[in-house]
Amino acid sequence: MTTLSPTIDKVMMDLAFIAARSAALAGEVPVGAVVAKGQRCISVAHNLVETRPDPTAHAEVLALRLAAYQLGTAHLSECTLYVTLEPCAMCAGALEHSRIGRIVFGAYDPKGGGVEHGARVFQRKTCRHVPEVIGGHREDEASQLLTDFFKNLR
Amino acid sequence: MTTLSPTIDKVMMDLAFIAARSAALAGEVPVGAVVAKGQRCISVAHNLVETRPDPTAHAEVLALRLAAYQLGTAHLSECTLYVTLEPCAMCAGALEHSRIGRIVFGAYDPKGGGVEHGARVFQRKTCRHVPEVIGGHREDEASQLLTDFFKNLR
Repeated sequence: MTTLSPTIDKVMMDLAFIAARSAALAGEVPVGAVVAKGQRCISVAHNLVETRPDPTAHAEVLALRLAAYQLGTAHLSECTLYVTLEPCAMCAGALEHSRIGRIVFGAYDPKGGGVEHGARVFQRKTCRHVPEVIGGHREDEASQLLTDFFKNLR
Repeated sequence: MTTLSPTIDKVMMDLAFIAARSAALAGEVPVGAVVAKGQRCISVAHNLVETRPDPTAHAEVLALRLAAYQLGTAHLSECTLYVTLEPCAMCAGALEHSRIGRIVFGAYDPKGGGVEHGARVFQRKTCRHVPEVIGGHREDEASQLLTDFFKNLR
């Protein structure tokens, strides 16, 4: 896999943050995700669980689904998934199935996360695909987004 | 939750098996799923990963998504999910998010399963919703379906 420049990571994560902020405007928990292949942004999505309604409509699942459609394959080994929050078990499982090359996520999620916490999907012995994972990328900014959202709800 | 009669379970699982056999005809790994609310079948789906293509298009995810759409809510606490194979980590996570009341699955999946094996999604301390789970329902029939499919592939 090509190592991407910090600039590409910054641009893609910027897009994920914009998507997350759009989710908040729609009354959805603000999580945004991007699938990129090299310098190309293939898909952008945000959480849509309540709007659809669809319990599987997390930002990562929607971004993966759209990327697979755009690229014409369920296997995204040359792609990176950027997301503002640590993926849950469902999303980590979806990322495993997609054979994603790399995952960059923002805030850690000790309660709901399934990568570094809880189910630790990529750490089990039977895991079929282990991507490169970079956690805590722009963590403060990512955490603040969620903190602000839940503060405004009260 | 109402305890369902064995007859309802049989009918719904029959539908899941029919869906699984349809998947095999389409060249997809034969897994079928049904969401039922009491005596009503809300959705039927089978694996469509290769056809779409979509790495998240497992039978359970598709059945949940359709059921949520049909019922107008992402929360399916009064529903039962019937599936011919033990759900993987992704699908178990989706079932957790959906707050499904009950899961009835056919064959156990020691390598890919995420309920009784691997990530054991519902057994982690931070699990937000633990449904009733009945595993190994019509296990021989469910296993045979997969065995036959993979034998024919060779």
